[in-house]
Amino acid sequence: MMDQIQATIITIGDELLIGQVIDTNSAYIAQKLNSIGVQVHQRIAVGDEAKSITNALDRAIQSSQVVLITGGLGPTADDITKPLLNRYFGGKMVLDQPTLDHITYIFEQVHKRPMIERNRKQAEVPDVCEVLFNQTGTAPGMLFKKNNSLIFSLPGVPHEMQWLTNEKVLPIILERLKLGVIAHRTLLTAGVGESFLAESIQAFETNLPDNIKLAYLPSYGMVRLRLTGKSDDAASLNSQLDTLFELLKEQVKEHLVTDKDETIEVVVGRLLKAQNHTVSTAESCTGGYIGHLLSKHAGSSTFFTGSIVSYDNRIKTEFLDVPTSILKTVGAVSKEAVEQMALAIRSKMNTDFGISVSGIMGPSGQTDEKPLGMVWIGVANKEKVVSKVFYLRFDRQKNIEVTANQAINLLRLLIINKI
Amino acid sequence: MMDQIQATIITIGDELLIGQVIDTNSAYIAQKLNSIGVQVHQRIAVGDEAKSITNALDRAIQSSQVVLITGGLGPTADDITKPLLNRYFGGKMVLDQPTLDHITYIFEQVHKRPMIERNRKQAEVPDVCEVLFNQTGTAPGMLFKKNNSLIFSLPGVPHEMQWLTNEKVLPIILERLKLGVIAHRTLLTAGVGESFLAESIQAFETNLPDNIKLAYLPSYGMVRLRLTGKSDDAASLNSQLDTLFELLKEQVKEHLVTDKDETIEVVVGRLLKAQNHTVSTAESCTGGYIGHLLSKHAGSSTFFTGSIVSYDNRIKTEFLDVPTSILKTVGAVSKEAVEQMALAIRSKMNTDFGISVSGIMGPSGQTDEKPLGMVWIGVANKEKVVSKVFYLRFDRQKNIEVTANQAINLLRLLIINKI
Repeated sequence: MMDQIQATIITIGDELLIGQVIDTNSAYIAQKLNSIGVQVHQRIAVGDEAKSITNALDRAIQSSQVVLITGGLGPTADDITKPLLNRYFGGKMVLDQPTLDHITYIFEQVHKRPMIERNRKQAEVPDVCEVLFNQTGTAPGMLFKKNNSLIFSLPGVPHEMQWLTNEKVLPIILERLKLGVIAHRTLLTAGVGESFLAESIQAFETNLPDNIKLAYLPSYGMVRLRLTGKSDDAASLNSQLDTLFELLKEQVKEHLVTDKDETIEVVVGRLLKAQNHTVSTAESCTGGYIGHLLSKHAGSSTFFTGSIVSYDNRIKTEFLDVPTSILKTVGAVSKEAVEQMALAIRSKMNTDFGISVSGIMGPSGQTDEKPLGMVWIGVANKEKVVSKVFYLRFDRQKNIEVTANQAINLLRLLIINKI
Repeated sequence: MMDQIQATIITIGDELLIGQVIDTNSAYIAQKLNSIGVQVHQRIAVGDEAKSITNALDRAIQSSQVVLITGGLGPTADDITKPLLNRYFGGKMVLDQPTLDHITYIFEQVHKRPMIERNRKQAEVPDVCEVLFNQTGTAPGMLFKKNNSLIFSLPGVPHEMQWLTNEKVLPIILERLKLGVIAHRTLLTAGVGESFLAESIQAFETNLPDNIKLAYLPSYGMVRLRLTGKSDDAASLNSQLDTLFELLKEQVKEHLVTDKDETIEVVVGRLLKAQNHTVSTAESCTGGYIGHLLSKHAGSSTFFTGSIVSYDNRIKTEFLDVPTSILKTVGAVSKEAVEQMALAIRSKMNTDFGISVSGIMGPSGQTDEKPLGMVWIGVANKEKVVSKVFYLRFDRQKNIEVTANQAINLLRLLIINKI
């Protein structure tokens, strides 16, 4: 097999090293590089400090034909990347006129306020780089070459970095490097633990050819399986992967949610759209997070109608007709309460389906009968209402996320008549 | 100054390199290490591949007295870390009885199902490590020593990694290494751009002593400023930082939201709790995300009552009394609509404050008069209703997040009588 093109991603910024900011840029870039067959073999995060950045660059260029640097290009004084790259590659700073014109335009026409010296400085670039014009912001991207490596430097602002990656970086890599191929197939399962899943497909995994790997990725109380293949030839790799993927799907069919790399709310949104059906949610412990998941993707207004978040028990009674007798006897975290909530929201918002949740997300609020992490989930359609209890063992934030995902999965099971 | 203890974080997992999973573990560990004065000077992410892991270990041990490895310790076959560490440190695998007892207990008493061979294997550890007993899961942590470095290996499951970090890793580091001190002061500003903020405090920044750094961190349309100081002596460093921080707060006082490292919803939650006041939300384009932010922290039930998510315009009329005449003339994304929504939710849920939002989050839905990213936000108390329009330029997901944060900030301004 031909050698895979190897890439290193370097992210720069003290905020990444003290943990104040989570690095989502690296994941985005890695995904995009993978999609064109470039394998990211390491990611390095370093602080705003010349020696660390220089060391990371040395190592990256030694081991990788593609190096992507992000962060450290904003207008403020903690940004030292550009002058450092200039010294590293032995250039001198020159003004890039298209970038200056663009910055001037943004300030005069968009922000409608005067440009300050700091902003003008963003148009200066090392004369040894190819400027990657940035349509979406004031800091340009830059491309340097050293030995056999292409070194891209991109701003850290996510939407600017994303635009430059798609419009400049990927086309340049595709054009200038001869690429091997990497491809993935991903499916999502629900209702089965990682260990048991692994046990049940052990033979399949053991018999995989050398160029194919299987990975298990936990996903909000469900498990994703991913096959990754490498080859010189896209057509034969895809056909090989397709065959194995069919086999894998067959083996896990009882638990299969989707055979695409997508989230549960996207699956359910598609099911609802296909049937021209709508859904509303009655949420307690998730505080609106289920509504957020259902509406975060474009096009959700065709199936998501709305929610009532009844965080206070008073709202459960006043807006969702949960009798105070239920709240007083079995309580808000009960089968009785969530079934009433699911029926009420469906009826009041006049939707085909209703979802409800009520639980104890932690870190306190438990009783002798109701432990931390106990959550009741209900779903209703015009024929019936179904509810299920879960016992989660994560922290508050994760319990909320898992509850929302499990609620949407329970709706899926109702839609496809599995409950 | 004494040398700072340097740390490297190594995260292992193909999923990190193909961008399928975002690495939140590193941020958590970095924060914790920083809090005890250990400086993370690099983070390395590598795939499930022996050579890359070995290289990363070599480099980390060369440059760092503390090395933290996470990931790659789950029960499935893509996990190669433990045997690799065993070879790397020249050990042989032995059974750790306390861990086996714990695993057996979890399966018999908690899961109430038989333990399989894969699970039993998790109790095997290299005889050259100190086992870090994991109360919260089946995979133990491990501590190795080489040259002058402590090398910790932790499971990748976030709540297990977090427990082991707090209960085992930090106490061991504090006990065995003589630590220098690093400390931070963070504040949050709103209503001013990064460039203009930087311009206005340029003199302050230029005059900072060498051991103090200032960083600018964008945060959902607001800007965080962070001072970081290093020293041998905690008392003198803290006094130095306190003085500078007071100076900085004075310079940005017009835009100051909080002088703690906390999010806007925590600030507003505290303000509401202090006054014994409550809030409800009427959300359109955010789909429940504001309710989620207000309720994601423990203790929010004292001030957050609930929400109506009126994603469909019909719900705006039926549940929030927005007249169809408004929807037909000025539309749902208008001053008139959000002001009515804020008044209605406050009155219907009987809360002290109401928040409302309606906007065009993208990627489509714009008209000639109403561009993508246009969003109206309203807030009401018993005396008045105030609304403001924003024009956001991010992608859909980010637009939703910024809208929610700006809405909560507008509520803050109403609470403190600044609007």
